[in-house]
Amino acid sequence: MSEPIDTLPDLERVRAAARRIAPHARVTPVMRCSALEALCGAELYFKCEHLQRGGAFKFRGACNAVWSLDDAQAARGVVTHSSGNHGNALALAAATRGIAAHVVVPEGAVRAKLAAIERAGATLHRCAPTQAAREAMCAEVQRATGAELVHPYADDRVIAGQGTLALELLQQIPELDALVTPVGGGGLASGVAIAAHGLDPALDLFGAEPSGADDAAQSLIAGKRVTTMVPDTVCDGLRALVGERNLDVLRMHRVEVMTVSDAETIAAMRLLWSELKQVVEVSSATVLAAILKQPQRFAGRRVGVVLTGGNVDLDALPW
Amino acid sequence: MSEPIDTLPDLERVRAAARRIAPHARVTPVMRCSALEALCGAELYFKCEHLQRGGAFKFRGACNAVWSLDDAQAARGVVTHSSGNHGNALALAAATRGIAAHVVVPEGAVRAKLAAIERAGATLHRCAPTQAAREAMCAEVQRATGAELVHPYADDRVIAGQGTLALELLQQIPELDALVTPVGGGGLASGVAIAAHGLDPALDLFGAEPSGADDAAQSLIAGKRVTTMVPDTVCDGLRALVGERNLDVLRMHRVEVMTVSDAETIAAMRLLWSELKQVVEVSSATVLAAILKQPQRFAGRRVGVVLTGGNVDLDALPW
Repeated sequence: MSEPIDTLPDLERVRAAARRIAPHARVTPVMRCSALEALCGAELYFKCEHLQRGGAFKFRGACNAVWSLDDAQAARGVVTHSSGNHGNALALAAATRGIAAHVVVPEGAVRAKLAAIERAGATLHRCAPTQAAREAMCAEVQRATGAELVHPYADDRVIAGQGTLALELLQQIPELDALVTPVGGGGLASGVAIAAHGLDPALDLFGAEPSGADDAAQSLIAGKRVTTMVPDTVCDGLRALVGERNLDVLRMHRVEVMTVSDAETIAAMRLLWSELKQVVEVSSATVLAAILKQPQRFAGRRVGVVLTGGNVDLDALPW
Repeated sequence: MSEPIDTLPDLERVRAAARRIAPHARVTPVMRCSALEALCGAELYFKCEHLQRGGAFKFRGACNAVWSLDDAQAARGVVTHSSGNHGNALALAAATRGIAAHVVVPEGAVRAKLAAIERAGATLHRCAPTQAAREAMCAEVQRATGAELVHPYADDRVIAGQGTLALELLQQIPELDALVTPVGGGGLASGVAIAAHGLDPALDLFGAEPSGADDAAQSLIAGKRVTTMVPDTVCDGLRALVGERNLDVLRMHRVEVMTVSDAETIAAMRLLWSELKQVVEVSSATVLAAILKQPQRFAGRRVGVVLTGGNVDLDALPW
C-alpha cells in the first residue's frame, strides 16, 4: 500500500485542496485568551476547527476527497470507518456533491457523533471497536456497493485536505514560532506538517498524544511503526493507530510528539471551557495539556494551537 | 432617587461611554450558526459577550462607571452587590484604574463567579440572598469606606455602559430587524434600547425573562413596578427585580418582554453548547428559548441575540 515518500502530498497539493474545498468549508476564526496565555507564558493562537462545518477539522479532508473523485467514481458513493468526526465529515461532504456515504462505526462511539452522521444522511454500519473489525466491515461495504474508500487518515487526499488548516492559520497569523496539533491516526499532524513547513521550514512542529494511545510517540522512538498497542484513553478521537504514510511525514518533518495523561487532558479541557468559553471535545484538549506540561518549550513564543473538534456528549462529560 | 425621565441616558451618553471604555473593553465577535438558524427560521446574529472581559457584558457598565468618577471619588473605591458577574466586572474595572472594589454577594451565588471576583482583587462581603440584605450590607460598606456605590443596573453610568454593546453590534451588523436581550434588573435591556433606538428607531426590541422571575413582564402589564415577587429560577443572573428607571426605559421604548420556563431555557442552553459550541451561562439562553418559543415573531428576520455571559460552574450544570 505504501508509496515511495517522494510521492507524498506537497504544498501544491494542499493549495489545490484549499481551492477545491473553498466553496464548502468555513474559514474558522482564531481566538486568544489572556488568562490561558498568562498560565502558559506564551502567545496562544487557537485555531477554532470546532467551529468548522460538522464541528471538526475532518470536513477539510473529507471534502477534498469527495471533490477529487471523477464522476463515475462519485456515483458509486464513498465509505469510511470512523469513531465519529471523520464519518460525520464524509457524510456532510458527500451531501455537498449529492452522493451516497456509508460510515462504519465502532461500538462505543460517542452518541452525539453518531446522531450527527445520520442527520447528514449517511448509512451507518456498526462493528466491533478494533482496527481489524473496522477494516473488514469497510471492505464488505466496498464490495457490496462499489463505494470509494476514504480512509480517515491514511489517504493522501485527506492528508492534503487537513493541511489546508495550516495554510489558513498561517495566512491569519503569519508569524508563528510553533504549531501544536493532536495526534491520532496522524492525518491532521501530517497534513499540517506538509503545509506549515512548505510555507515556513523554520516552524517548530509538535504533536500531542494521549499516553494511553502513544503509538506515534513510540513509533518515532523505535524508528518503525508500533502496531501492537491497545489504546486506553478517554480521547475517543485519538484511539486510531498512526498510519504508515502519516508516520513517514511526522519523521521527515521532525514533528515532536509529546504525551499527556487523560487527567492532564481533562484538566486542560476544563480550562478551555471555563476560560476560552469554547465547547471543545476532550481530544482537542491534549494540545493545551501538552503546553501546560512543558511550558518551557513554548515560553514567550507565538504558538498556533489547533482545537480539532467540538462534538461532545453533554450527558457524559469526563469530569 | 428616581429622576425625571427626560434626564435618562441618551445615545450621546452611550457614545461617551463607548469612548471611555474603549481602552479597556473588548470588541466581541458576532457568530452565526446554520443549524440554529434552520431551527428558528431566522437569521441569528449572536453577540458574544461571554467573550467580553470577565466573561460577561457587565464589564461595559462597570468600566464606564469606574472611569466616570473624579479622582477624589475614585480614591475611596467602589462598592456593589451582585450575584456574580457585575461584582466580577466591577472588580476588574476597578483594577484598570488601580482603585479598591468591595463586592457584596448573596449566599447561593455561583462559586466560579465568586472565585473570579476574588482573583480580580476585590474584597467579598457575604449577605443573605434578599434584595434588602444586599442593600443593607452595601450601605454598611459605604459608611465604613466612603466607597462609591455602583449599582448593578439602577445606575445611569451602568445603563449607558451596557448600551455600548448595541452600538458595537449595529456597527458590526447594521441591518438588524430585531434585537433580543435577557431581562433581569434591566440594566442591559434599557441601555440597549436607548442605543439601538437612538441609531434605528424602527428596530423591534425584545426582552427574555424567566417565568419564575417575570417581574418586568408583570410590571409592564400592570403599568407599575411589581416588587412583591420572590424569584424562583435557575437563571442566577436574572433574579434581580427590574429597576424603576430601567422599567421606565423599557416602557418608553416599547420593549416586549417574553417569558420562558426554566426547562425551555435549559434546552436552549444545551443547543447553544452543542450547536454554537459556546460555553454560555443559563441566563444567556433565555433569549434563544424565547425565539424558539415564538418563532413566528422572528421568522425570516435578521435578529441580534445577546449572549450575556459564560461564567458557568462546570460541576453544577443544570441538566
